[in-house]
Amino acid sequence: MLDVQTRILELSTEGHTHIIDLTAAVQEAIKSAQLEEGMVGVFAMGSTGAISTLEYEPGLVNYDIEAIWEKWVPYGRPYRHNQTWGDDNGAAHIRSFLTGTSAVFPCAGGRLLLGTWQQIVFVDYDTRPRRRKVVVQMIGRFSKNA
Amino acid sequence: MLDVQTRILELSTEGHTHIIDLTAAVQEAIKSAQLEEGMVGVFAMGSTGAISTLEYEPGLVNYDIEAIWEKWVPYGRPYRHNQTWGDDNGAAHIRSFLTGTSAVFPCAGGRLLLGTWQQIVFVDYDTRPRRRKVVVQMIGRFSKNA
Amino acid sequence: MLDVQTRILELSTEGHTHIIDLTAAVQEAIKSAQLEEGMVGVFAMGSTGAISTLEYEPGLVNYDIEAIWEKWVPYGRPYRHNQTWGDDNGAAHIRSFLTGTSAVFPCAGGRLLLGTWQQIVFVDYDTRPRRRKVVVQMIGRFSKNA
Repeated sequence: MLDVQTRILELSTEGHTHIIDLTAAVQEAIKSAQLEEGMVGVFAMGSTGAISTLEYEPGLVNYDIEAIWEKWVPYGRPYRHNQTWGDDNGAAHIRSFLTGTSAVFPCAGGRLLLGTWQQIVFVDYDTRPRRRKVVVQMIGRFSKNA
Repeated sequence: MLDVQTRILELSTEGHTHIIDLTAAVQEAIKSAQLEEGMVGVFAMGSTGAISTLEYEPGLVNYDIEAIWEKWVPYGRPYRHNQTWGDDNGAAHIRSFLTGTSAVFPCAGGRLLLGTWQQIVFVDYDTRPRRRKVVVQMIGRFSKNA
Repeated sequence: MLDVQTRILELSTEGHTHIIDLTAAVQEAIKSAQLEEGMVGVFAMGSTGAISTLEYEPGLVNYDIEAIWEKWVPYGRPYRHNQTWGDDNGAAHIRSFLTGTSAVFPCAGGRLLLGTWQQIVFVDYDTRPRRRKVVVQMIGRFSKNA
């Protein structure tokens, strides 16, 4: 039957381009909701987080992504956001805006249709450890017997 | 009942990275359609606009985002697009491609699930004032009594 | 009637920021599935591809987008990804992460609601020719008579 189901994941993050693999948690949400075929929206609540996909290997996750951002949108610049609010996370807001905070993944046969080396990631660009909420919303055909 | 509803917002924009807060208009569309739980797709029609989320405060909106773009994809370069078409908005096309023109937001309990300081924004990267269309499409469970 | 339908497109790509116009193929999927009104998710399987929109004209497609990437995330740098895996496509992974691999397009009256000069594109950032899969998932109201 067609339906919509909404789950909220809670994460503990360290900030400074902390990249977390959400793939297993999203697949688990699909399994527990018994989504058979449909769209899975993943949304980062908050304006210093982001959602994208990435091959989750240490080189990209721990070095390359952060190195590129430090070249383009370094944390230590006098952004107007920081000056206005006495804040230090202006770069985090800009990186979040540019990466995007939502993505939609296809599910068929009860499985995410991802590439072999492709993981769903949450990125925390903020400058301090935080508790984060990520919304996983599923819409489509569920195989509920109940 | 499950359903799909489509609304089109019309905006007057100034171009040159004009950032407009759409959050109230999207929430109003949800309210008038009586969407209870589901996905809200927001799509910028046109190849020089964009959709993302941002803390809508003057530092980011009026200074920081444009300053970063001017560093990476400045308006005044001789892009091939401009040379080919006698145009001046090559940078606008590239910025739109990189930011993205669609996003999907979760709705539950009749409300958008956004972070406290997170707004839905339309960005006009074009180089002149325009009239713009943004599609808001809702799919999920509506609480229609009619 | 409300339903969900999933199609997989197969593409032959050349890599090195090869940009392919998917608009006709997505519109054809809508037509063959008889989607009347709903969301069309387009997803690039693989962590070196991307989905976005672009005015599909030779200046942007063959020159400008690649020139910007070569300035920001050039192929020829010693990314940690390349050093770790003896690979040469670290830049492709970073570009894919930054562009995004999913987008959602609105359909109404059986047609995609795109801007006049706006096309749906798949981008292959990898460094060699490949066979690629793009998922087109439609959810909403279908005008099936059968």
